[in-house]
Amino acid sequence: MNREFLLVNRPSGMPTDENFQLRTSPIPGISDGEVLVQTIYLSVDPYMRGRMSGIKTYTSPFELNKVLTAGVVGRVIDSKNNEFQMGEIVEGRLNWADYSVTSGKGLRKVDPNLAPISTALGVVGMPGLTAYFGLLDIGKPKEGETVVVSGSAGAVGTVVGQIAKIYGCRVVGITGSDEKNAYLKNELDFDATINYKKENVKEALKEKSPNGVDVYFDNVGGEISDAVMRLLNFQARIVVCGVISEYNNTEAAYGPRIQRFLLNRSALMKAYIVSDYYERFNEGYEQLGKWVKEGKLTYRENIIDGLENAPQAFIGLFHGENIGKQLVKVCEEDKL
Amino acid sequence: MNREFLLVNRPSGMPTDENFQLRTSPIPGISDGEVLVQTIYLSVDPYMRGRMSGIKTYTSPFELNKVLTAGVVGRVIDSKNNEFQMGEIVEGRLNWADYSVTSGKGLRKVDPNLAPISTALGVVGMPGLTAYFGLLDIGKPKEGETVVVSGSAGAVGTVVGQIAKIYGCRVVGITGSDEKNAYLKNELDFDATINYKKENVKEALKEKSPNGVDVYFDNVGGEISDAVMRLLNFQARIVVCGVISEYNNTEAAYGPRIQRFLLNRSALMKAYIVSDYYERFNEGYEQLGKWVKEGKLTYRENIIDGLENAPQAFIGLFHGENIGKQLVKVCEEDKL
Repeated sequence: MNREFLLVNRPSGMPTDENFQLRTSPIPGISDGEVLVQTIYLSVDPYMRGRMSGIKTYTSPFELNKVLTAGVVGRVIDSKNNEFQMGEIVEGRLNWADYSVTSGKGLRKVDPNLAPISTALGVVGMPGLTAYFGLLDIGKPKEGETVVVSGSAGAVGTVVGQIAKIYGCRVVGITGSDEKNAYLKNELDFDATINYKKENVKEALKEKSPNGVDVYFDNVGGEISDAVMRLLNFQARIVVCGVISEYNNTEAAYGPRIQRFLLNRSALMKAYIVSDYYERFNEGYEQLGKWVKEGKLTYRENIIDGLENAPQAFIGLFHGENIGKQLVKVCEEDKL
Repeated sequence: MNREFLLVNRPSGMPTDENFQLRTSPIPGISDGEVLVQTIYLSVDPYMRGRMSGIKTYTSPFELNKVLTAGVVGRVIDSKNNEFQMGEIVEGRLNWADYSVTSGKGLRKVDPNLAPISTALGVVGMPGLTAYFGLLDIGKPKEGETVVVSGSAGAVGTVVGQIAKIYGCRVVGITGSDEKNAYLKNELDFDATINYKKENVKEALKEKSPNGVDVYFDNVGGEISDAVMRLLNFQARIVVCGVISEYNNTEAAYGPRIQRFLLNRSALMKAYIVSDYYERFNEGYEQLGKWVKEGKLTYRENIIDGLENAPQAFIGLFHGENIGKQLVKVCEEDKL
């Protein structure tokens, strides 16, 4: 049998279990050209909250009473498509389900000998690419500059900080927990960290970022960003990657207007989503894979067992629960 | 005798006459290497408000009880500098005064046979360069795109709109008066205009900018910009040139946070000041001069007579009084 999660109503504010429903039905058959994939790892990511809102943004919203989709790493268990063979490991946007049928479009083969296959959803997957293109193409960090990363213990933030270190920058991470900050300093070699729940971000940043901020990689928005905005250097670059502080707002968020801060520093602010760089994905995968192999890029995964726990894993993202990439393990890699 | 304006106290909110004081003293002599310039036209510009605040931004603040500086077009009436001869017309950052002594650094010669010399403070001066580099280098308008300009009847906005037309764009101007809008439509060939004092900007923009907004050239900030932000197209570019709606605020301005709007459209927002492009000024002067000569770029000047009225001319900028470039005529061109 196949278990699938449907979105049965749209969250207002923080998502809850009530928004999701598990449906069980027979494993689907496939037609000519199609591939049947059994899910091993399912990715939950903050951007999904936007798609649950029903508002048209850069991606179309999830439809009500339809199966949710996510980044999935799985194994081909049936194929009527010449490009994919039984037993191959693949990654693609598939269903919140045990099994998915796909045309193979957008499906990427994952070589299990290069790196653990779960990394295809993290450091060498969408979050890794998001970090790579945002930091390098928009942030353009130069040796000796200071890069500040908010939400820096997440799947994207951890990669951003490490790439900035590879580029010779001073890296300051902002998170909401001492445990996360210890990980960033001790294992990822961040130069400094701030716990926004305990410290006044502006004062802490003045102290820990004495040369100001050249690049601000922003995953969170809100008051943390207000504080960083006051310490920008001339020609600073703000990479707007996410606004996790706002995803669950039911009303528009208000804050200090930022145009004047930008003007005082001739600063740039650029938002993006990773698909803006679709044509350069292979470059990104190659470079990220190389850095992982060289040990320059390490990662941590937070793995929750069982498809049935996918909603909780997703909701946990907004409670700051995960260090690194949040995954749901749907079946054992070696039990297929 | 020489009359000079000093800044005697810093404005809180809207500037008033009380902030300025006229001092009379003998015309200064010059030393080796120096030039004495008699002011013909004095430029007043919104950016000066920032310098009066005493807050260090991109330019150093005006000092209290010192003579104010401004863009000046004048005539060399004495010179101990080989590069400048008596009788030559020059433009540079000089004093709010009848006469200024300068080392000649940053002083530019103005050819009175190419165009009226006053244009060296406007369409072929700092405001023209501001429009040229901001629109083309940041806004990067493409043929057929829609360019929205706020503060569009000012010295910068009028040039922005006309360059956008040269580039084949649909141009929508936002001002606070029907008279200004008639000028933009009838004389500068803008495609549409909005009077923000009479119209709901968002609704009007939906109607007058049916294909959305690709480039937003922002001189004003505040609620007008909030409205435009809701109609951005994918990969839109926002050129942050000024925030005239905020210059006289005594407290930080609050408004809807914009990161989310940027994210939904992968939009760019870049602030700048014209001096960021210092090394390309000659390119700008040449192109602007060429367009003026070809009749592709027209301009209007609002001229107030008498140095003694400079503070009023400056304050008028914040009441939306001027169409085109606001100048103060300090002496007649031909009466030197």
